[in-house]
Amino acid sequence: MVSMATPVLLLLHDPSRSTGFTAADPALPVASALDLGITRGDGIFETITVIDGIPQALDAHLTRLERSAALLELPAPHLAAWREAVFAAIDAHDDAPESFIKLLYSRGIEGTDEPTGWVYMQPSGDFSAERTEGIAVVLLDRGYHSTIAETSPWLLQGAKTLSYAINRAAAREAHRRGADDVIFVSTDGYLLEGPTATVVLKLDDRFVTPDTHLGILPGTTQESIFEIAVVNGYRTAYEKLTPADLLRADAAWLVSSVRNAAPIRSVDGVPRSIDAELTESINSGLASRTS
Amino acid sequence: MVSMATPVLLLLHDPSRSTGFTAADPALPVASALDLGITRGDGIFETITVIDGIPQALDAHLTRLERSAALLELPAPHLAAWREAVFAAIDAHDDAPESFIKLLYSRGIEGTDEPTGWVYMQPSGDFSAERTEGIAVVLLDRGYHSTIAETSPWLLQGAKTLSYAINRAAAREAHRRGADDVIFVSTDGYLLEGPTATVVLKLDDRFVTPDTHLGILPGTTQESIFEIAVVNGYRTAYEKLTPADLLRADAAWLVSSVRNAAPIRSVDGVPRSIDAELTESINSGLASRTS
Repeated sequence: MVSMATPVLLLLHDPSRSTGFTAADPALPVASALDLGITRGDGIFETITVIDGIPQALDAHLTRLERSAALLELPAPHLAAWREAVFAAIDAHDDAPESFIKLLYSRGIEGTDEPTGWVYMQPSGDFSAERTEGIAVVLLDRGYHSTIAETSPWLLQGAKTLSYAINRAAAREAHRRGADDVIFVSTDGYLLEGPTATVVLKLDDRFVTPDTHLGILPGTTQESIFEIAVVNGYRTAYEKLTPADLLRADAAWLVSSVRNAAPIRSVDGVPRSIDAELTESINSGLASRTS
Repeated sequence: MVSMATPVLLLLHDPSRSTGFTAADPALPVASALDLGITRGDGIFETITVIDGIPQALDAHLTRLERSAALLELPAPHLAAWREAVFAAIDAHDDAPESFIKLLYSRGIEGTDEPTGWVYMQPSGDFSAERTEGIAVVLLDRGYHSTIAETSPWLLQGAKTLSYAINRAAAREAHRRGADDVIFVSTDGYLLEGPTATVVLKLDDRFVTPDTHLGILPGTTQESIFEIAVVNGYRTAYEKLTPADLLRADAAWLVSSVRNAAPIRSVDGVPRSIDAELTESINSGLASRTS
């Protein structure tokens, strides 16, 4: 069932300095042809899921927005302004079982030093099949050594930028190979992340995710899953993981804000087991977050 | 002297299927908040210099637009539509000593399968200082092996995409180090390209540029320079080049459509000689192209 709720778009007046926003018609254009967000992919974003009016892991998303801005040397976002717009969007939006909010923050029109910021909200698609039946993934070379974020910070690994053409191309490559999604691998053989998701493995009694020092995004959904895991008596760890770990894991997921935990049912065509009960328990835990 | 000419913006009606465009006010927004050009940097561009009403190397730019579109699996651009809009922009634009036209072609609003295309024209800045006094460059690790375009095409090396956040970050890193521009180097030690320019060296009686198989853009201005060089009795070659070649070259330039040939006067703070006479001759040759 596709919700008919109307999207909401709020344009922040001054996303780095003050609160205040204006509602805009999502059907009309909002970005200048000179906005560096479109001419250079020079900006950042966050995608936040909203369930029962609660923006999930909002603090973690705002913290990551701030971190991405610092990596791109954008003016620090005025977090109160973004928070205000998030709640205003939720107030203005029709009820839907699951919705998502996208925060977009670009360097703005070239030469103006005035960043662009908006908050967009619409109902989410239906990911129940992915959550229950799982997804097929392929491993793709990311072309970078695992030390890249430390040796070459200008490559912006670990920032959630608007420059996602590679992430889109990798997804197309996965579909061409008959798979649903991708896990990037470093040139020295470590699991990194998906184009829009974090890798989480269950290894015995531990939930493990790739170390963020590998030049990957800190996962907001992964962080929530670790909290749920700890409450349920599991240990958690950030480690260097390999494709062999992915195959031997008791369970494996790609986790992200809107799709939540999608169990991995094959890797490069090789089937692996999914733990339906544990996945359901994780996704229920995610859906019942109160912040 | 800054020209006061008014920018021109033409929106293509259907950039992959038919001619036709509408003039828009460049001061007003033109892109949707859902355009994949801004949300994912999912699109491509070209920048063409215009001198005396002639769009320089237009065919080479259109060919490269088509090549970038193929690498991103965008619908092939309808080149007649783009060509028509380029000449219409020139007709609508006030005279200026040098102007530039930007072609922007994105995948369009998510879910519509209708790409976005526009042609934007404005007077160019004044690059006479860079062309005569030269530029200081730093070498920065691009993080990729020189075989990346062949091994991992989903990384889109060699496509001129809207996902240029890294190119902008590299330029900031150069400025932080007191330099003007960057030459990227592969992990196996080969010169690649600048963030928005091609490397050209003069080695004895040869003009040499990095082999495009290294996962770099084919340079439209470099191609014109090679034509000028051949007319003047030089040989030309595409080769694997190293930082040692850059230091030992008789002359070295970063070349691009708007700035033209900017002689390199230092590399990582080490001075190297510039050939003012040859540079002037190249830039005169570029400025007098008839197509």
